[in-house]
This record gives sequence, structure tokens and C-alpha cells, in this order.
Amino acid sequence: MNKTLVFRYLSKMTLAGSLIFLLPFAVSLMYGEYKAALSFVIVGAGLAVLSLPMIFSKPKSDDMYTKESLVIVGLLWLVFPVAGAMPFFISGEIPHFVDAVFESISGFTTTGSTILSNVEGLSHGMLFWRSFTHWIGGMGILVLALAVFPSSKDSMYLMRAECPGPQVGKLVPKGKNTAVYMYSIYGALTILTVILLCAGGMPLFDSVCHAMGTAGTGGFGIKNAGIAYYNSAYIDIVITVMMMLFGVNFNIFYLLLIRRFKDAFKNLELRVYFIIFAAATLFIGANILPIYHTAGQSLRYAAFQVASIMTTTGFATADFNLWPDFSQTILVLLMFIGASAGSTGGGFKVQRLIIVFKNTGKYIKKLLHPKSVNLVTSEDKAMDTDTVHGVHTYLGIYIFLIMVSTLLVALDDHDFTTTFTSVTACFNNIGPGLNKVGPMENFAFFSDLSKIVLSLDMLLGRLECLPLMILAIPSAWKKKF
Amino acid sequence: MNKTLVFRYLSKMTLAGSLIFLLPFAVSLMYGEYKAALSFVIVGAGLAVLSLPMIFSKPKSDDMYTKESLVIVGLLWLVFPVAGAMPFFISGEIPHFVDAVFESISGFTTTGSTILSNVEGLSHGMLFWRSFTHWIGGMGILVLALAVFPSSKDSMYLMRAECPGPQVGKLVPKGKNTAVYMYSIYGALTILTVILLCAGGMPLFDSVCHAMGTAGTGGFGIKNAGIAYYNSAYIDIVITVMMMLFGVNFNIFYLLLIRRFKDAFKNLELRVYFIIFAAATLFIGANILPIYHTAGQSLRYAAFQVASIMTTTGFATADFNLWPDFSQTILVLLMFIGASAGSTGGGFKVQRLIIVFKNTGKYIKKLLHPKSVNLVTSEDKAMDTDTVHGVHTYLGIYIFLIMVSTLLVALDDHDFTTTFTSVTACFNNIGPGLNKVGPMENFAFFSDLSKIVLSLDMLLGRLECLPLMILAIPSAWKKKF
Repeated sequence: MNKTLVFRYLSKMTLAGSLIFLLPFAVSLMYGEYKAALSFVIVGAGLAVLSLPMIFSKPKSDDMYTKESLVIVGLLWLVFPVAGAMPFFISGEIPHFVDAVFESISGFTTTGSTILSNVEGLSHGMLFWRSFTHWIGGMGILVLALAVFPSSKDSMYLMRAECPGPQVGKLVPKGKNTAVYMYSIYGALTILTVILLCAGGMPLFDSVCHAMGTAGTGGFGIKNAGIAYYNSAYIDIVITVMMMLFGVNFNIFYLLLIRRFKDAFKNLELRVYFIIFAAATLFIGANILPIYHTAGQSLRYAAFQVASIMTTTGFATADFNLWPDFSQTILVLLMFIGASAGSTGGGFKVQRLIIVFKNTGKYIKKLLHPKSVNLVTSEDKAMDTDTVHGVHTYLGIYIFLIMVSTLLVALDDHDFTTTFTSVTACFNNIGPGLNKVGPMENFAFFSDLSKIVLSLDMLLGRLECLPLMILAIPSAWKKKF
Repeated sequence: MNKTLVFRYLSKMTLAGSLIFLLPFAVSLMYGEYKAALSFVIVGAGLAVLSLPMIFSKPKSDDMYTKESLVIVGLLWLVFPVAGAMPFFISGEIPHFVDAVFESISGFTTTGSTILSNVEGLSHGMLFWRSFTHWIGGMGILVLALAVFPSSKDSMYLMRAECPGPQVGKLVPKGKNTAVYMYSIYGALTILTVILLCAGGMPLFDSVCHAMGTAGTGGFGIKNAGIAYYNSAYIDIVITVMMMLFGVNFNIFYLLLIRRFKDAFKNLELRVYFIIFAAATLFIGANILPIYHTAGQSLRYAAFQVASIMTTTGFATADFNLWPDFSQTILVLLMFIGASAGSTGGGFKVQRLIIVFKNTGKYIKKLLHPKSVNLVTSEDKAMDTDTVHGVHTYLGIYIFLIMVSTLLVALDDHDFTTTFTSVTACFNNIGPGLNKVGPMENFAFFSDLSKIVLSLDMLLGRLECLPLMILAIPSAWKKKF
């Protein structure tokens, strides 16, 4: 591997990244929180200084292969969360280091699981920082999914081979341009969310924080009661709609922008995504009717929770720990499905589900018609074997990592539901699970070992495993191979 | 499809199968249980009479394709469990019909989940019948796995392509001969178990019942307290060892018989199977040491439970509901792994796990060495793409069916752990799960809908999905295709 090149790239990005600490610094100053402000300056400056030495190194070659780019991505997602934890730790607002790292990783990976039992005890600067990490994290994932991974030859990443929208590489040849397009859409939708929330009477600070949490499909709130604090049907609906939009493949928005409406709406993943949303909302709505009495209320709470779990955001307006087992089970299944590929959401992704299904159908058809030659079944385009193979491999890794993590967290000796859903919620970057990690609970009670395992799960889930796994393979670090 | 041929085959087998009711009839007579005896005669005779008409039909052609054989297998596994339920129902010993069918399917599929809260209330004839269905079911699966499926072209079944032992087809060309070999080994091991149990002071009737339950990796007991009733370390050890042996690929025994020891012991699945057993036993043993005080006792209970769950038998000597979450989680993971391919055990199978792992390793290697051509990694032989594809497809179907079933059972509104592990335990043909379906509990409290879903799960899991799924596809029944 070309280590010099890797570290040069990494340093460039951490140097640029040190600037992001200026924004929470400004917020802290604005609210007169000098201790918090100081901690942001220290961390930002520290990161910048540490980045300098490697910038001026000259790599022998500029050749960048899949391996190098995966390693850079993996390292970036280790460095930023650790740097992001430092303000919490230095300011003393989250005094335990493992907790600070957990909270920061949860932010950057847009998971939204928290170790804080009293969110309202944080300063404005820190609250802003938590939500801001969601926004940055969501942005990072968008670029990764839409600009970096498509150019990789690895079929585990769906964009290149499977996105039926515009082939990003074809439309806008350079990664940087794609990023600009995507950031613009992302930014515009975020601002729209802020405006809509303010219009509903939510204070500006709260609106900005929640808009960033929605955009990144993160889920950190700034109130102990979550979104339920505002107790407003209007706000619930705005957030439900915006969560669903941020869980859509961003290429669809691009298609809409360039007025290719037909292409956008005939996208299969988009349709399946909204059908799952509608079906889950109706089933849960009917199931919780006895609790909320009117159909309107039931659907409002059901839709919000379905959107929140499916897009892997994790905001809560109701304690679904108290809902019937049927509704809870639907939510657990949604945790595994996740949002669309190429969105800020996590999980297994609707697109992968479609591929697994199509492949199974093809398999059974082949069995029934052994002599038939024409095996291509998908309407729009042939699924190439590599993609199916990649998706299946991902499924195997996904299940294996969830199993191992569940085993390690089980050492804490809570009940199986808590253990299993805490891993599921972290790995799929959702936030809340069931029982002791329910929507009105937090992750503070776990042992340090469990917190570290769950932190790694958040990272693994967010990066879809490979970039982190490669870091752990010794042979990947060798000079020649 | 050649319907006449299918039904002719089916009738032949049900006519032969009607004879199996003679054995429980004899047992009932021996114990003077005339009502039970009568019910066995009625069902046996009824089945024989119903089988007659189709026997003499002449199919236009004798061509038997994969499709036809899968349909026959699927139908057989619907007819026998329903016929097997009739004695329970007619005799009034299990008065609710759905319960009787559940119990019978649980028997034939060698699951061992029961709806009886007081097993000791049954007559000797019925207790014998329950255990006998395990034995018959285990035999059926062996022939299916080793003689029927290998000749099918479908790579979802592992034997043909993957068993590194003797290619059954090569050694003994005709299915009937293979069956004879396998039945002899199966019978000899069962008799050995009876002798060993009797030697430990277990009454003959009890020994025969438990030996049949062990051989089929079923798990129906005849005492309310299960194997714990005998409270004997010797009996625990005998059953532990025999369960593990019945979970081994039967081709291995064949290899041993023909003195090809080297081939037998270098079998990768065999090694992995015993390594998983040893590791799980040690971890659980250490984890439950505080409960049982001595290392010997802890290991005895741990080994028994690990063997029982891993081989999907389901006998219990301890209430693992009371064990720490870590031990419970290991047991849940073992539920998914299951026994070896080509054994009487169920689950996903160790061999499939190995294939998924090897494939993932290959995938990552390919990513790190994109230019390398030599991608064959398995020591013994190349994994062909078809097999990997088949295993992955099975994994997809497996997960999907478990999810849908969990959702349906969740309508009963028990806790998530109960719902999830009841489906897992039935689908993988294990028997007990956790919480309300723990080893000292039963399945009586479920609604009829849940019992039907769980019954179907037992059948789907046992037949590895395809034969039953094909029955549900209308186009499979069409005359021409």
C-alpha cells in the first residue's frame, strides 16, 4: 500500500476538517459558554497542528487503488469521531472518555444512541455540536455513497452497478462536482426543514438542531422527552415527511432537478420504500388504535415512528416500548431493512432487499423451468452476477458481525431483547431499541466493553463493513502486493 | 407436471406408511390401553384404504424430474403429519385438532416442541407414538438428504456438490441401496443408545422412547421434568454423546465402516462441528459456574444443553431460562447454526456456515489482490459458484421466512424474546426457546393462528423450504411447462 499517499490525503482532510469546530465555537460564544468555546478552539487547533507534518510529504506515486481509498475512508471515520469526542471530554460535560467517544461516534455515524440521561444538562454549544456531527456525518456518507464508492470496483457497494438513476460517473465525471450537487440538495433540504419547523413555533436553535438531526437521519434530540416535548401534530408531520425525504436515494432528487420526472418515479427502490412505509404505518396504526383512540392520532404516531426507524433516524414522539408486540416486531424488522441506497440513512437498504428477492424469484423460476434459457427477469436491467454475489456476501458479513456483537454485549447480562436490539439499533445506525434501550431510555448503563463494541458496530454499519475490516487485515498494510 | 405419476408414488408410500401404525398399536395392547390401540388401527386402516385407488392408475410417462420429486416430498410431509395427528385426536388424548397436528408435525419434523403441559398424562401407546414419529422423521430426512436431494440438480441441497465424503451416487448407484446402508447405521446407533441407557438404570420403555428421540434429534420426552427426571450424570453423558453423533454427517459413519478413517477425520465440517461444541461448552460452563459451583457439574449441564440445541434435539436437563444472558445468547446463536449436513439434525447447518465464511474470505482476498488470478482457496476442492449461490439464496429465504413468521406470531402479543425464539426453535427444528417457550415450558398458550404458523415453520425448516414452497406455486401444477 502507498502509505505516504494515504496519510497525505488523510492530513489534508483533517486540516480542512479542523475548521468545522469554528461553528460550535461561535455558538458557544453567542450563548456566553466560555468553557465550551475554549474546548472547541483547543480541539480544532490541535487537529490542525497534528495534520501539518504529513501535508508536505511527497508520495512516490499518485496511484490510488480501491484498497487505498477504502483505507483512507476507514481512517477518516476513526480520526473524526475521536477528535469529535474531545470537546465533550475536555469541557467536562461528558467526563467519562469512553462515553464521550460513544456519543461522538453515534453523532458522526448518524446513529443517535446516547449515553446521556439528561440531555438538557448540556450547554448550547455542545447540543449544537452533537446535532452538527449528524449533519457532517450525513454529508460524508452521501459523498461516500455517491462519489467515492461508485468508482470503486467493489460490487458490495450498490451505487455503481445497481442505482437505476443516473450513473453518477457518467453525468458528472469528477467526484468533486458530484459532491457539490449533492451538498446543494442536502443543504437546501436542511434549510427547508429549519424554515418549516420555525413556522410551527419551534425556536430557531431547536429548529436548526433538529433539522440537522433529520438531514443526517441521526436522531440526537435536545430535550429529554425528544420530539414529544413539542407535542405538536404539525411538527410531527413536518419531521415525518422530511425524514422520509432524507431516506430517499439522492440521485432521485438530482433527476427531479434536471426534470427527468419519469425516470425518477419509475425507480423501483423508491416505490418499494414508500410501499413499506405505508404498509407498516397502516398495520401499526391499526394495532395501536386502542391506545390512542382516534385513527388520526394512531396514524400520526405510527407514521412518525415508522419513518424514524426505517430511515434509521431514531427520533421519538411515543414510547413504543409500551406498544403491543406486533407493532414492536414490525419496528424491529424495519430496523433491518433500513433506508434507500444513496441516502443518509443506514441499515441493510431497500435496494439490497430487492436484489435478494429478485434473485430468489429467479432461482425458483429456474428450478421450475430448467430448460428455459432466458433467465433475466428484472424489468429495467439485468442484475449482473457480481452485484448479487456482493450483496449476498454483505448479508453474510452483516449477520456474522451482529451475532458476534450480540454475544459480547450479552456479557453485561441484560435480557435478550435489550442485548439484541441494542446491537441492531447501533449497527443499523438507528438509535433506540427495545426494553432497556427503548426510545425514552439511554445507553449509559452499559459496561465500557459493551460501549466499545456498540461504537464499533455503529462505525461498521455506517461504512458497510469493508473500509474498517480492511484496516484490521495486516496484509493490507504491506508495501507490495 | 406429471400428476398421475406424482400421486401414484405418493399412494405407494402412504400404503407402506400405513404399516407404521402397527407398532404403537402393539405397544398400546401390551399396556392394555384399548382406546389408544383402537385409534391406531382406525388410522392405519383408513390410510391404507385411501391409498388404494391411485395405486393402480397408469401414468403416461415415467419421467421424473426435480420438480416432481420435490412435489412428492412436499406432499408426503403434509400427509404423514396429518395422519399422525389422528390417533391423538381420535383417542381424545389431545382433544383440540390444531394441537394434535402441531404435536404430530413437531414429531415428524423432529422438532420436539410440545403443546402438552402434562406429558405424563398420555397413555404408553401415545408416548411411544410421539417418540416413534421422531425416529421415522429422522429416517425420512436421512434418505431425503443422502439419497433423494443429491440426485436433484438443485445446489441449495448440499450433499451432491459439497459433501467431501463419498459421493453417494458414485459408491452406491441406486437410491434404495443408499437407504439400506443409512438405515442400518441409524438402526445400530439407536439400539446402542437403548442398551447404554438401560445399563444406566433407565427402564426399557423410557430407554426406547428417549433413544428414538435422540436418534431423530427430536427431543420429545416422556416426563414432565425432561431428562432432568433421571438426575443421573451417566445418562446425561450418554445422551450428550449420542446427540452429538446423530448430528454428524452420516457419510462419515459410512467412511468409517469402509475403513477410510483418514477421509473421515479430515472432513472440515466434522472438525468445525466439534470445535463449535467444545468452545460453546467451555464458555457456557465458565459462565454458569456460580450456579452449579463445581466445574464438573457446570460442564455436564453446559455440554448437554449445547449438544441438545446444536443438534436441534431439544432435550433439557436444566432450565436455561435461569442462566445468564451470555449463555442464553450462545444458545440462541447455536439455534441458527444447527447440526451437520446429511445428519438428522436441523438448522442452517455447519456446512453452509463454512461456505458463507469461505466465500467472504475469498471476496476480501480478491479485493486486496485485484490482479491475482488464482482465487480457489478451499483446501480440499473448489467451491463452485452454483453452490455458493444456492447457499446464499437459501440464507435469503431462511431469513425472510423467519421474519414473516415472527410478525405473525407477534399478533399474540407476548414479549419479543418469546415470539422470536419460538419461531427460531420451530424453524430450526429444535424444540424449546427462551422465556415463555423455555425448556421447562410448552407451546400450549399460543393462538391457533400461531400454532399453524409454527407448524408450517417446522415443515419449512425441516424440508429446507423448497419442496413446500413449490406446492404453493400455481404454475408448478400446470400440465405443461
